[in-house]
Amino acid sequence: MLLKILIINPNTSPSMTRAIGEIAKKYAGSGVVVSAVNPEQGPVSIEDYYDEHLCAVGVLEEVKKGLKASFDGIVIACYGDPALYAAREVADVPVVGIAEASMLMACMLGHKFSVLTILRRFKTAMEEVVKKYGIEERCASVRATDIAVLDLEKSRAATVEALTREGRKAVDEDGAEVLCLGCAGMAGLDRDLEAALGVPVIDPVMAGLKMVETLVACGKKTSKTFTFRFPEKKQIKGFSEILQP
Amino acid sequence: MLLKILIINPNTSPSMTRAIGEIAKKYAGSGVVVSAVNPEQGPVSIEDYYDEHLCAVGVLEEVKKGLKASFDGIVIACYGDPALYAAREVADVPVVGIAEASMLMACMLGHKFSVLTILRRFKTAMEEVVKKYGIEERCASVRATDIAVLDLEKSRAATVEALTREGRKAVDEDGAEVLCLGCAGMAGLDRDLEAALGVPVIDPVMAGLKMVETLVACGKKTSKTFTFRFPEKKQIKGFSEILQP
Amino acid sequence: MLLKILIINPNTSPSMTRAIGEIAKKYAGSGVVVSAVNPEQGPVSIEDYYDEHLCAVGVLEEVKKGLKASFDGIVIACYGDPALYAAREVADVPVVGIAEASMLMACMLGHKFSVLTILRRFKTAMEEVVKKYGIEERCASVRATDIAVLDLEKSRAATVEALTREGRKAVDEDGAEVLCLGCAGMAGLDRDLEAALGVPVIDPVMAGLKMVETLVACGKKTSKTFTFRFPEKKQIKGFSEILQP
Amino acid sequence: MLLKILIINPNTSPSMTRAIGEIAKKYAGSGVVVSAVNPEQGPVSIEDYYDEHLCAVGVLEEVKKGLKASFDGIVIACYGDPALYAAREVADVPVVGIAEASMLMACMLGHKFSVLTILRRFKTAMEEVVKKYGIEERCASVRATDIAVLDLEKSRAATVEALTREGRKAVDEDGAEVLCLGCAGMAGLDRDLEAALGVPVIDPVMAGLKMVETLVACGKKTSKTFTFRFPEKKQIKGFSEILQP
Amino acid sequence: MLLKILIINPNTSPSMTRAIGEIAKKYAGSGVVVSAVNPEQGPVSIEDYYDEHLCAVGVLEEVKKGLKASFDGIVIACYGDPALYAAREVADVPVVGIAEASMLMACMLGHKFSVLTILRRFKTAMEEVVKKYGIEERCASVRATDIAVLDLEKSRAATVEALTREGRKAVDEDGAEVLCLGCAGMAGLDRDLEAALGVPVIDPVMAGLKMVETLVACGKKTSKTFTFRFPEKKQIKGFSEILQP
Amino acid sequence: MLLKILIINPNTSPSMTRAIGEIAKKYAGSGVVVSAVNPEQGPVSIEDYYDEHLCAVGVLEEVKKGLKASFDGIVIACYGDPALYAAREVADVPVVGIAEASMLMACMLGHKFSVLTILRRFKTAMEEVVKKYGIEERCASVRATDIAVLDLEKSRAATVEALTREGRKAVDEDGAEVLCLGCAGMAGLDRDLEAALGVPVIDPVMAGLKMVETLVACGKKTSKTFTFRFPEKKQIKGFSEILQP
Repeated sequence: MLLKILIINPNTSPSMTRAIGEIAKKYAGSGVVVSAVNPEQGPVSIEDYYDEHLCAVGVLEEVKKGLKASFDGIVIACYGDPALYAAREVADVPVVGIAEASMLMACMLGHKFSVLTILRRFKTAMEEVVKKYGIEERCASVRATDIAVLDLEKSRAATVEALTREGRKAVDEDGAEVLCLGCAGMAGLDRDLEAALGVPVIDPVMAGLKMVETLVACGKKTSKTFTFRFPEKKQIKGFSEILQP
Repeated sequence: MLLKILIINPNTSPSMTRAIGEIAKKYAGSGVVVSAVNPEQGPVSIEDYYDEHLCAVGVLEEVKKGLKASFDGIVIACYGDPALYAAREVADVPVVGIAEASMLMACMLGHKFSVLTILRRFKTAMEEVVKKYGIEERCASVRATDIAVLDLEKSRAATVEALTREGRKAVDEDGAEVLCLGCAGMAGLDRDLEAALGVPVIDPVMAGLKMVETLVACGKKTSKTFTFRFPEKKQIKGFSEILQP
Repeated sequence: MLLKILIINPNTSPSMTRAIGEIAKKYAGSGVVVSAVNPEQGPVSIEDYYDEHLCAVGVLEEVKKGLKASFDGIVIACYGDPALYAAREVADVPVVGIAEASMLMACMLGHKFSVLTILRRFKTAMEEVVKKYGIEERCASVRATDIAVLDLEKSRAATVEALTREGRKAVDEDGAEVLCLGCAGMAGLDRDLEAALGVPVIDPVMAGLKMVETLVACGKKTSKTFTFRFPEKKQIKGFSEILQP
Repeated sequence: MLLKILIINPNTSPSMTRAIGEIAKKYAGSGVVVSAVNPEQGPVSIEDYYDEHLCAVGVLEEVKKGLKASFDGIVIACYGDPALYAAREVADVPVVGIAEASMLMACMLGHKFSVLTILRRFKTAMEEVVKKYGIEERCASVRATDIAVLDLEKSRAATVEALTREGRKAVDEDGAEVLCLGCAGMAGLDRDLEAALGVPVIDPVMAGLKMVETLVACGKKTSKTFTFRFPEKKQIKGFSEILQP
Repeated sequence: MLLKILIINPNTSPSMTRAIGEIAKKYAGSGVVVSAVNPEQGPVSIEDYYDEHLCAVGVLEEVKKGLKASFDGIVIACYGDPALYAAREVADVPVVGIAEASMLMACMLGHKFSVLTILRRFKTAMEEVVKKYGIEERCASVRATDIAVLDLEKSRAATVEALTREGRKAVDEDGAEVLCLGCAGMAGLDRDLEAALGVPVIDPVMAGLKMVETLVACGKKTSKTFTFRFPEKKQIKGFSEILQP
Repeated sequence: MLLKILIINPNTSPSMTRAIGEIAKKYAGSGVVVSAVNPEQGPVSIEDYYDEHLCAVGVLEEVKKGLKASFDGIVIACYGDPALYAAREVADVPVVGIAEASMLMACMLGHKFSVLTILRRFKTAMEEVVKKYGIEERCASVRATDIAVLDLEKSRAATVEALTREGRKAVDEDGAEVLCLGCAGMAGLDRDLEAALGVPVIDPVMAGLKMVETLVACGKKTSKTFTFRFPEKKQIKGFSEILQP
């Protein structure tokens, strides 16, 4: 029986979504079918709290569509894991964020990890994500490359160079033993970085996909006991039918 | 010179917005003009992560409108402080959430406070808010009345009874010395509860209003240095002109 | 009806008390009358744990006198908030420390704040204050100017220069987004620093005054439930009548 | 190409090792070959710090043998994860402990998890494991069934009954949303418990196997940068050749 | 050569001071001479923040007298360790508080300790002491007997009964493995409690004496590098010559 | 009556054991007899997790022999405190680790301490020890000299130089006020370092001995209530008679 995994790119940039899909397909296990989509509405890239809040409606709409289409697991492929907890309320199948998945994977490969993020301003948001998951002690640092999301793919060489520079500081100055690529737009660069730095580097799209595959393979679903019960029934004024709870 | 304060109710329920506006007007200082609004789009009440994410677009639209109308300070009047950090990016004037304001006020009146919230399922979200503000040590507990937001105003007697019951447990079992009413829909009930329990009880709408008044009176604005810089310029697909950064 | 606020300067230096009083009057709301006093006994400046302990008797005597004179709220205007918890036991009206007030205000203006203090040796005491209030996560750093309290007013230019130097390091190296002036003797320098550094800077005397004004305006009093009950009745040997509980 | 996973049961009880092996085979992915072994020397069951320390030599010997036999990944199948960090030093392939794997998996299924352990005395050791991994905030509680390891398989009915009793308390009183079976000897009981309690229950052997499978599938290895460098070369007096570093 | 240890009882109650002196003499090592004193001025018992602040001047005066009399080490014998950090500034010889000493001793005898204190209102102060020393994780609980300090010696039977009742709850409900008697007025009751409860019970006067003896025997002194430098030279208005820095 | 203290050096290097014994004898109180031993089996030096796990069997064998020989207290003299919690299960007399003892002693001499350790790779293990004892807040830093254990005694001059260099950084950059020598092989160097750096430096062997002496003098034993109950009765396959529980 085939497992169907839906990967939602909260950035409304089709070229980025295609790149994410390709990475995911590369790592998909046997019998796993991957679909990568992005909402039609929302920011073309996600780089601040404002973008994170405005992408949420589109992400939740894709989650709801994915449930209708009987996907077995869902990945939210933006490193702030936007709308993850809301998506877990909506879904019964497992939903995984790529930040969460990559950090948890890093925990099994070294004592401390660092996250390499995009703009300096987004550092607080990244630190808040680490704190939300309660794993601050395992995080050596968040370091910014100061490259905007859509510039990541413009010059792979420049991106790798910046990641190598900040990754080296994370290892040498902060004590990181594993590095997490902190943006879906960095997917596919892990091998280059490992070659340059000699430490494990986690591709977050890979981590998200493999973690949700694992949960599905184990037959586990999101707990509906308390935090992630289905949303309360009510009217959401001015929103499409599919978004009504 | 008049100070103009905008109070945004993220719940799209006009009767609740009116009640919030009345409380705010009651506490407004001399020379302070208060306007209470709610978005046209979004959930009629906010009771889970799903609602919090779906109300954000409307809240940010009201923030942007408020800035155009030259308000001097903004209050987000829903106890999860939805979209607060995004609103701080958008605004240069001070923006305060009622959860944040009431908890900080409570810190000056007793050693530990408890929050009285609505449905049990929302307890995690409330605890996450406390954690986000980094004041877990001052929070004795979050206790749920298990009353839905829109039921709060249906029977004031039943609401006061449930708040008294949970408030008493917070004091006696958890060591709370101050109580925060954890929903804008509970505004106005602080005196009744104080009479019943003998501890200070914070009306969150009052706290939000007075804290933003104070910031404005001091001439202080949101720091634009790092976390709360203005949103990055980019296209937000499918969103109205006013929401483009 | 007039609100009467008492500001107690724990340093027994009348020139400093006068300066504090002037700042407070500048920020006092309409209908608010401010009195600034200092004890007759105690250290001329407070710069170590020894001073903090020796100033306490005088501070508590002024609190007791203030209650007899029917003040509506009290501010303790020394950045270690000496005797604050004891004063809260003695008083029923709200009592606020300027450290506490300025840090809580800072929390609403940026994600992290730093405190600029006096002598390097006092850094531990400042860090302990942050820890006592349970807001370590919001504090980026405490940085010392290494200027003694009574030297702060000798050369305003030198003081502003040192504060600017350490403030810049706090922003650039520690990630501070808001700065707190960590001594009542620095009151009035916030605007100069804001101009130099471009981040909000909190005058602690202003913060203390406005926070207690807010509490009084809201009709809130210190919780007498548990931690801050009135002192136990007993003999305090060798102390004046007014200090007997 | 086949992936070879070694599962080491630190308890020297062959019947338990067989049961562990069966569970692991049930969950092994396509192309994954699992071998379950236990050391010849060491405690027949692991129930206190003394046992944990005495099993370590045997565990490390099995790790070394496994590396010689070219296993691609190793699981330590005792819920205290004994000798895990030492094993990571010795190995270049990924090594996962079942406590670690199950707790990380639980983090993706609910906001808080509880661990159901064996004897009450072992509660501290379990809490120390949670603390070592830095995820205390996600752990609602550790609850003891007070059943000894080797008694777990004597009466499956009694074991399920005790787990159900403590699991229910974890959910109702501690707020757990996911439960981790805190002993390899409880492997295979997750479905019974899920049926009884309605929350996801993690079989730790399953979690350990699937997590190491995932790491191997991703081509990731333990970081050798800092904490987990290969052991220093030196003489280990009185130990067999294979244990010399 | 004789070691001279000064024990300062911050409570101005000579009968209590005598009892403390007797316990200390019982435990004093060979060659150790103990003197127990109390200030002439200050509260007859210490039961709230107010008392703690008012006893400080007297305690510091006794510290200064003790230094003049060439004592080799000083113990502050009141469980809130009032004025400890100030005393460390003043002294070059080691100064130990009985709360600190007993808690550190407890850490070597069990994984978690509880403190049995006097009035319920003082619980916060005790918890703050634990927090100040940074050992919250080792503290299972603070439990109040609700007996006032001067009543402790009125009826030994009633005191032992209350301590036994709260001590049992600390062990059974909170997981305490060691108990600290949280008041100098409880000194000498440890054996009775150990007999009743079967866990180690620390007499705080004993702990304070033996810890300072140990520091002196090791030739160690308080660090003067940073936090505990000698007090800054300045005028302390209205205070006796001996208290001038 | 003589007190008999057993000091177990987990490193199987007799010259190191002799040096440890000499230091211990120098500090032993009157009436205290000290014996220093090392296991026959195990690593010649302990420098990584692997060594720590392999030394445990030998350490526990020496503990058991010591109990048969009626020692009154036991010190584990290796700075990672290997097998300490297991030894506490086995013994009824007090057992102290030198890391624990030295850190607790440091807490009474300054606000923050640093640990000077051996190889950089061992830094994580040291930080984990600090965390295990729950005193992270008091630890300014762990700094590595990068000298291997057995090289420490090769050149005392080089060792003192490296310790002085790292100790100075700990004081100047990390804010340490007390230094702990983080290896039994550094015993005896505290005075040299104090002379060079002007801060208290703790010899860990001295600290371990004096702390266990103190516990014995106070008549206190390890709590057997919960965590440190005697090991469960069972077969330990392939181990000598003395190691059977």
